[in-house]
Amino acid sequence: MPTTVNGKKEIPFKGVNKYKPKGTKTSPHISSCIDYPEDGNKVVKNLREALKKAGLKDGMTISTHHHLRNGDAVTNQLFDTIKSMGIKGIRWFPSASFPVHKHLIKYLEDGTIHHIEGSMNGPLGRYTSQGKMNGTGVLRSHGGRYQAIQDGEVKIDIAVIAAPTADPFGNATGDRGPSACGLLGFALADSEYAERVIVVTDNLVPFPCIPWQIQGNNVDHVVEVNSLGDSSKIVSGTTQVTKSPDRLLIAEYLAQFVEEAGIMKDGFSFQAGAGGTTLAFAIFLKEKMKKKGIKARFIRGGSTKYLVEMLEEGLTDYILDGQTFDLEGVRSMRENTNHVNTSPFTSYNFHGKGNFASMLDCVVLGATEVDLSFNANVVTHSDGYLLHGIGGWQNCLTSKCTILAIPSFRDRIPVIVDEVTTLVGPGELIDVIVTERGIAINPKRKDLLKIMKKSDLPIKPIEEIYNEVNELCGGKPAKPKINKNKVVAVIKWVDGTLIDSVVEVEE
Amino acid sequence: MPTTVNGKKEIPFKGVNKYKPKGTKTSPHISSCIDYPEDGNKVVKNLREALKKAGLKDGMTISTHHHLRNGDAVTNQLFDTIKSMGIKGIRWFPSASFPVHKHLIKYLEDGTIHHIEGSMNGPLGRYTSQGKMNGTGVLRSHGGRYQAIQDGEVKIDIAVIAAPTADPFGNATGDRGPSACGLLGFALADSEYAERVIVVTDNLVPFPCIPWQIQGNNVDHVVEVNSLGDSSKIVSGTTQVTKSPDRLLIAEYLAQFVEEAGIMKDGFSFQAGAGGTTLAFAIFLKEKMKKKGIKARFIRGGSTKYLVEMLEEGLTDYILDGQTFDLEGVRSMRENTNHVNTSPFTSYNFHGKGNFASMLDCVVLGATEVDLSFNANVVTHSDGYLLHGIGGWQNCLTSKCTILAIPSFRDRIPVIVDEVTTLVGPGELIDVIVTERGIAINPKRKDLLKIMKKSDLPIKPIEEIYNEVNELCGGKPAKPKINKNKVVAVIKWVDGTLIDSVVEVEE
Repeated sequence: MPTTVNGKKEIPFKGVNKYKPKGTKTSPHISSCIDYPEDGNKVVKNLREALKKAGLKDGMTISTHHHLRNGDAVTNQLFDTIKSMGIKGIRWFPSASFPVHKHLIKYLEDGTIHHIEGSMNGPLGRYTSQGKMNGTGVLRSHGGRYQAIQDGEVKIDIAVIAAPTADPFGNATGDRGPSACGLLGFALADSEYAERVIVVTDNLVPFPCIPWQIQGNNVDHVVEVNSLGDSSKIVSGTTQVTKSPDRLLIAEYLAQFVEEAGIMKDGFSFQAGAGGTTLAFAIFLKEKMKKKGIKARFIRGGSTKYLVEMLEEGLTDYILDGQTFDLEGVRSMRENTNHVNTSPFTSYNFHGKGNFASMLDCVVLGATEVDLSFNANVVTHSDGYLLHGIGGWQNCLTSKCTILAIPSFRDRIPVIVDEVTTLVGPGELIDVIVTERGIAINPKRKDLLKIMKKSDLPIKPIEEIYNEVNELCGGKPAKPKINKNKVVAVIKWVDGTLIDSVVEVEE
Repeated sequence: MPTTVNGKKEIPFKGVNKYKPKGTKTSPHISSCIDYPEDGNKVVKNLREALKKAGLKDGMTISTHHHLRNGDAVTNQLFDTIKSMGIKGIRWFPSASFPVHKHLIKYLEDGTIHHIEGSMNGPLGRYTSQGKMNGTGVLRSHGGRYQAIQDGEVKIDIAVIAAPTADPFGNATGDRGPSACGLLGFALADSEYAERVIVVTDNLVPFPCIPWQIQGNNVDHVVEVNSLGDSSKIVSGTTQVTKSPDRLLIAEYLAQFVEEAGIMKDGFSFQAGAGGTTLAFAIFLKEKMKKKGIKARFIRGGSTKYLVEMLEEGLTDYILDGQTFDLEGVRSMRENTNHVNTSPFTSYNFHGKGNFASMLDCVVLGATEVDLSFNANVVTHSDGYLLHGIGGWQNCLTSKCTILAIPSFRDRIPVIVDEVTTLVGPGELIDVIVTERGIAINPKRKDLLKIMKKSDLPIKPIEEIYNEVNELCGGKPAKPKINKNKVVAVIKWVDGTLIDSVVEVEE
C-alpha cells in the first residue's frame, strides 16, 4: 500500500470508525455580483468559450457527473475541446466513467488527461489495470467523493455539469427535457465547491428552471448544445428482472430472510439497487408486504418502475432517491413530491452530521468476491482486473442489516474466496451473505443467528458454502499474474483513508 | 462613521459596485458520523441540554431566524435558558427582531446579551437609539446577512432554528405544523455555516421530514417543545389592503406607471411586499394584466393570498418566495410546486455568482425618508429613532426598475427631505418615487423620462413634490436632538462595507 499517491501523502485505513478528520471544510473563493451579468444571462456561445472564461490551464482538475451513464456525449466532447485548446495534464474527476468514455483513452495516451480519479466501469478500468495510465487511479464511493471535495482533498478547478434542463442563470434539473436523467445529485458537491462551474444543457428554458436541483447561484457559465447524448442509454425504458433460476432463488431467499428476521415491519426502510436479482427481491418483498398489510416509511432508490409502483400503491410513504434507473423513475420524481431527490451529501457523506445510510433497516448489495471473514470486494474480479466502480456500496454498509446477494460462482469461478483481490468493504460491516446455495450470517450478528434459528432457510456457516462451491468449481480461483510493485489504483474508505490498492495485471 | 465596530475593523462604503471581496468563503469544522447517532435520532431532552452539548460558552455568537415574526416564543425561551445557565456576553445574531423580543431588554441590561447584530423592529431599536446597549448594533440586509456569514465576517457558534415541523435527524420545514410559517430561508446560512445547529420544533415527525428546507445533515441536536409561539402572530389569517384614499391613489399610480412604462409585458417579473399600499398595487396590476391578457414569468414574494390568486389563476408561472405573510401563502407553498421556496442565498447574496434581485423587471418598496438625490432611508425616522430593519430592501434596489411607494408625509412630517437621517440606499439605484402628490423619476433614468413623456400621470421633478409638501406641513422635519459622538448602530451595504451609522437620540 503506497503512502503517497499522485504526489500527495495519504492516511492508511485505521479501522471502521477509527479515523476522525481535523480542520475545517474547504471553500471556494468569494464571488461578487459585480462579475456576473445583472440580467442573469450567463450563456456563452460554446464549451470552448466557457472553458476559456473559466481560466482553463494545464494540470487543472475537471469534474463531471455520471447521471447520463453510458449515453453521455458531453464528457467526450469536453475532452475533445480541451485537446483542441492544447491543454495538457488534466486530472479528470468524474463521479464515474462508463464504456462510452473509452473515447478518452487517446487523451490518456497523449497526455491531455494525466489520470482519472473516479470509478472506472469497463474499458478505462481495464486500461488502468494494464498499467498504462500515467498517474494512479483513485476510487471513492459516492459519499467518499463528496467527503473528498468537502474536506479539500480534491480541489475542483472547473466542474462541467451536463443538465437535461437549465435556465440562462444556471439553475438546472435532471427531471425533464429530452435527455432527462432524473436528478443531478452526483454533481451537487461539484457545484458547491468547484472554483468555476459550467452548466451544459440541450434544453434551455427561461428563468426560473424549476426545480433547481443545481442552483444557478453556484454557476459561472451556461452552454447550450444540440444534445447531451443518447437518451436511450441515459435511462433505459425497461429494467430487466432476472430470469436466471439461481438468481430468482437468491431473490426469494432475500425476501424471506427480510421477513423472518423481523426487518419487514410497519415503518421500515430498505435499499435495493437495479440489478436483476435485487429487482426480483423488491417484487417478492412487495408481495409479502401487501399480504401482511405492511407499509415502509421510505425506500431508497436507485429507483425503478418497481419502486415507483410501491410508492403509487401506498406501500411506502417516500422514495428517497439517489439516481433514477428508468423512465418511470424519472416521471415519478418529476410528478410526485414524495419521490425525493437526494444527494451523496444527505445520504452518504461520512464527514457530515450523520447521513441517511446508517438509518436504513436493510440494504441489499452485490459483490465480486467475499472472503471467509465477510470482507468484500466490488471493484476487481478474481482475475485482477479493475472493472467496476464503488458507487454507494461502501456507504451503504453502515445500514442496520447489510446483505450481500451473490451467486456462489460466476463463470465457474467461486465468489467466496480465501482472500479478496481488493478489500473494499470490511467484513465487520457485512451482516449476511445470500447465495443460491445457502445463507451465511456473520458470526458477529448473534442476534440474527438467534432469530433465524428456526428458519427453513438454508442458513449455514460461510465455510460450508465455500467448501461446497470450491468442490463444484474444481478448486479456488486461479491467482492472476500481477506486478505487485506497480500500484495502478487505490481504494479509499468512506473517511478518506486508504483501504487497499489495485496492482498491474500482466497479460 | 467609525472605522472599528465592536472591536473589529470595518471597510467604509466605496460606492455602488466598487468593492470586491478577496479570499475564500468561510466554513465550519469537518464533522464525522462517528460523533452522531447511527439511527439518526438527535433528539435531546431540552434546550438546556442541547446548548450544553453544543458547548455554549460566554461571549459566543448565537443566531435565530425571524420567520415566526411577532409570534416567536423560542428566542425568548432560548435566552431565559442561557441566563439560567449563567452565561454572559452573548452576541445575538437574529435575522430580525420584533416587538415580542422586548423581553430580552433585561438580558441586554444584565449582560447576558452583549449586543445585537440584526434588524431591530420596534422596542429593541428604540432601546439601542437611547444608547443603552453595550455594544454597537449592526444592521444588515437579508442578503448582507447571508454575505456576512458566508464571508466569515460573522462566525456563528450556535444556530437555534425554530422549525414548525422536523424529524429526529434535524430535517425541518416551515410549510406545515401548528406553527407553520411557510419557509425557513432566513435560517439557511445559519444551518450551513454555524459550528453547531440546534433545531427546535413543536411538531416532531418520523424521518424523513419532507420537504427538508433545512437539511438534517447540517444539524447537531433536535429539541421538542410544546409550542413555538403564538401562531396567530406568526402568520395572520388576513393581510390588510389599505383603505386610505391617499395610499390607494399611490397604488393606482404604481400600477399605471408599471403599465405605461412598458414593464408589464408577457414574461415580466415583479416584487411587491405585504404592506397595505403594495397589496393594493398588486390588485390593481392584476386587473390590468387580466385585461391585456398578460402573464408574468415569476412574482417574488413575500407571498400573500393576492399573489397566490395570481398563481392559481394562471397570471404567473411561478412565485419565488422568500417569506409567506399569510395562511394562503403557507398553503400554496405546501401544495403548489410552482410556489417556490427561495432564500437570501438565491435571491439576495451580493457575494454570489449573481442573484435573483437584479433580474427583476420591477420592484416596489417603501422608505421612511428620501432626499432630493433619491438617496433613501428605511431604518430610522426623522426623529432619529432606529425602528425598522432593512429586510431585503437594499438587495432589491438592483432590480431593473426600483420604485419607492411613499406617502409624501407621515404625521405631518415630510418624507422627502434635504438629507436622510440614515443613508441605507444610494440614490443612483432608486429609479422612481411614487407619492400621492406626484411621481418623480430619477434624472439618471432618461429612458423612463422619455417613455413617460406623454403620460397622464403627475410626473414631476422631485423638488416640486418636496416644495409642495414642505409648504403643506409647515416646513422641514425638526432636527432630532442627537449625540453625534455616540454611534449606537451601523448600517452595512450589501457588499459588507459600512454605509452609514446611527447615533444616540437624546430625550
